[in-house]
Amino acid sequence: MVQPVIILVRPQLGENIGKAARAMLNFGLTELRLVAPRDGWPNPDAGPTAAGAGIVLDKARVYDTVEDAIADCTHVFATTVRNRDMPKPVATPFEAANQMRGLIAAGEKPAVMFGPERSGMSNDDVALADTVLTVPINPEYGSLNLAQAVILVSYEYFQGASETPAYQPAHTDGLASKKELVGLMEHFESALEAKGFYRSEGRRVTQQRTLRNLLQNAGFSSQEVMTLRGVVKSLDRVRGE
Amino acid sequence: MVQPVIILVRPQLGENIGKAARAMLNFGLTELRLVAPRDGWPNPDAGPTAAGAGIVLDKARVYDTVEDAIADCTHVFATTVRNRDMPKPVATPFEAANQMRGLIAAGEKPAVMFGPERSGMSNDDVALADTVLTVPINPEYGSLNLAQAVILVSYEYFQGASETPAYQPAHTDGLASKKELVGLMEHFESALEAKGFYRSEGRRVTQQRTLRNLLQNAGFSSQEVMTLRGVVKSLDRVRGE
Repeated sequence: MVQPVIILVRPQLGENIGKAARAMLNFGLTELRLVAPRDGWPNPDAGPTAAGAGIVLDKARVYDTVEDAIADCTHVFATTVRNRDMPKPVATPFEAANQMRGLIAAGEKPAVMFGPERSGMSNDDVALADTVLTVPINPEYGSLNLAQAVILVSYEYFQGASETPAYQPAHTDGLASKKELVGLMEHFESALEAKGFYRSEGRRVTQQRTLRNLLQNAGFSSQEVMTLRGVVKSLDRVRGE
Repeated sequence: MVQPVIILVRPQLGENIGKAARAMLNFGLTELRLVAPRDGWPNPDAGPTAAGAGIVLDKARVYDTVEDAIADCTHVFATTVRNRDMPKPVATPFEAANQMRGLIAAGEKPAVMFGPERSGMSNDDVALADTVLTVPINPEYGSLNLAQAVILVSYEYFQGASETPAYQPAHTDGLASKKELVGLMEHFESALEAKGFYRSEGRRVTQQRTLRNLLQNAGFSSQEVMTLRGVVKSLDRVRGE
């Protein structure tokens, strides 16, 4: 399956290449390219931090220049934090992920470039990109390292393709039926009646409604209604009965 | 401003506490709580990896138990990857961020708990949470470390509050007017006419439309139209003229 290419431009530390590979594989990305890694390639410092993502390192391809690394790509994002005085569209990771999914669906081959740890992307490299990718960040701090930038981009790409629902209720089956719930309400009410819980006939209606509403809203399962009926029964019992 | 509390439950390595602090501050979160950190607190290993986020470490509060750490909170998320056989709603980081913003706007105090590096949250701790927070991840790999989990949760919270538009066009002002664009088209056409570019009268219409369309779609600024007119003028010149 076609997926975005992750390109590390002149990365300095092998351990950061390993961390980037781990970040990628967590979110299903496996196509890593390295442009002129400072300490050569392979780099023995990369394996340990890759933590099981060695397959990404093994498949990594090395290029001398950015031009070579992006030659077969058709839309390239350059990850930068600085404004470059270079007219270029700017996208968030979320938007870039949306665009990359659209590009891939249309048969295109997108890539995301990340610059060296210390200096970031050079202006000449950014000029080759279609779109700048900038992570919105705390303007008073902003200290995102290479692997963190890679994980946020990879994460967003995976999220949009993921079929995991954003929210899954506590009980995917087995929610109590309304009959079970009303049975619980009536059980509470008769037990409370016997204990003199209702101060007056006038307040009974309000007190019952309040209790019914909180029991209704709690979202109990059938099993939980049975648990609570056991609790009411036990509390209702004369001690030692 | 009220913000989500980040709670590290029984964290093992000081350097991971520092990385978590850095991840938080990148996205504007500063309220860190530690439950029974294995190596005590303060921990000299935390500072170096916090990389300037020392203020988060300095303000961190330490508790003996999860119950104490969440005592003043009203909605607690437990970050886990494993299914617990415990009926509990499950939210993605995106959904949890949405919920937390809604809770804070309603005057509530949400928190997100993260378990120890090796084992993750205990079932007893998860039972105290309102909602399980699970990052959708590559089912064939899934190796998210503590600081990565913290950065993804913090990132999502910040993104929803960020006013950065998802997409900013290349030219926020200074896009070429249609008059300038048509001037460029006509300049190309007259220069090409003189060079015999149009093979036949019949194909002229199609060739001109193709060129006009690509110039139209390129999204040039006024400045870029001027640059291109200089380029056409120069190419049109008799060599050495």
